[in-house]
Amino acid sequence: MQFSSALLENAVNEFAKLPGIGKKTALRLVLHLLKQDTAEVSNFSEVIAKMRSEIRFCQRCFNVADADICSICSNSMRKQEIICVVENIRDVIAIESTQQFNGTYHVLGGIISPLDGVGPDQLNIESLILRVQKEKTEELIFALNPNIQGDTTIYYIQKKIQPLGIRVTTIARGIAFGGELEYTDELTLGRSLQNRMPVENYVSNR
Amino acid sequence: MQFSSALLENAVNEFAKLPGIGKKTALRLVLHLLKQDTAEVSNFSEVIAKMRSEIRFCQRCFNVADADICSICSNSMRKQEIICVVENIRDVIAIESTQQFNGTYHVLGGIISPLDGVGPDQLNIESLILRVQKEKTEELIFALNPNIQGDTTIYYIQKKIQPLGIRVTTIARGIAFGGELEYTDELTLGRSLQNRMPVENYVSNR
Repeated sequence: MQFSSALLENAVNEFAKLPGIGKKTALRLVLHLLKQDTAEVSNFSEVIAKMRSEIRFCQRCFNVADADICSICSNSMRKQEIICVVENIRDVIAIESTQQFNGTYHVLGGIISPLDGVGPDQLNIESLILRVQKEKTEELIFALNPNIQGDTTIYYIQKKIQPLGIRVTTIARGIAFGGELEYTDELTLGRSLQNRMPVENYVSNR
Repeated sequence: MQFSSALLENAVNEFAKLPGIGKKTALRLVLHLLKQDTAEVSNFSEVIAKMRSEIRFCQRCFNVADADICSICSNSMRKQEIICVVENIRDVIAIESTQQFNGTYHVLGGIISPLDGVGPDQLNIESLILRVQKEKTEELIFALNPNIQGDTTIYYIQKKIQPLGIRVTTIARGIAFGGELEYTDELTLGRSLQNRMPVENYVSNR
């Protein structure tokens, strides 16, 4: 792509560094910003820079925070004795959006994956175990993606935590709402048969 | 979407204002930036703000410029007597990327479209006519999109410019390279038959 303005070219190149944004999309975004008021664009740029420089990670659960402790950990209305263990911040946002969970989180910052060179030491596992020992935790809920790495991580943490005698659960796996039996893979279907639930539970959950 | 950080939420909302970027994509982009160095993100934000506040439009051709006159108009290696009339900046970039044109441009800033309330007065047409009268223009090449609005614009400008006796052309319409006759619409196929070209021209162009 040939640009007649270095300012334009630099802006396009910056946008094109973002994941999933190619040169053509970057150009479209830049030309859109060019049509906006200067004040609006400078606000856009300030908000982004401020987000990166001022955002912190909660010292207790490693979620993003505006202070030392995130708004979930510092909220006395939430059950601090229940910890939901997730892989990353995106999972926190996904679970929060369901508005079905009233406990706290612990963000691991990844999952154990020897093939990718990620071991327990690179993750926030040690801090989770310390936290569980120190606080009066009642239940640990694993909300990890259902794959081998997720299962390995659950197994590893569960082994470490077993002596403490805390209730450890994982979110239900099964057939998604709106899914069709015919197109469900054998593993999911098989497991959902093994882990079948009483209909009264199912009905009361709706 | 529920965020536990206002800084994060504001950044996501700013990205989600961009065209074609929804909340989920915005979140992905923000989380990507969060992983980058602070210096890199502040550079990103500075380049964007600088682009908007410092970019100017060429006083001669209305292309984007870093100074009063754009780099194409101020380039003495380019044929200043040939003007390619285009709708917007994106078209300039598209034509420049072909590296087949060595003249200058005139960006109309839109096309005549009565249905959208765009008349000749909102476009850079008056300035084009003044420019053609003042400069020793030899040829005006219309590179507008092949639709009714484009044709109307060509017709309007051509009528105004006719008395000056300048050569006026339009880029060739026809079947695109790699296109198949079978799937070409009748209008394009019909016109391409009417405007057929000698094979020697075709061969020498390849």
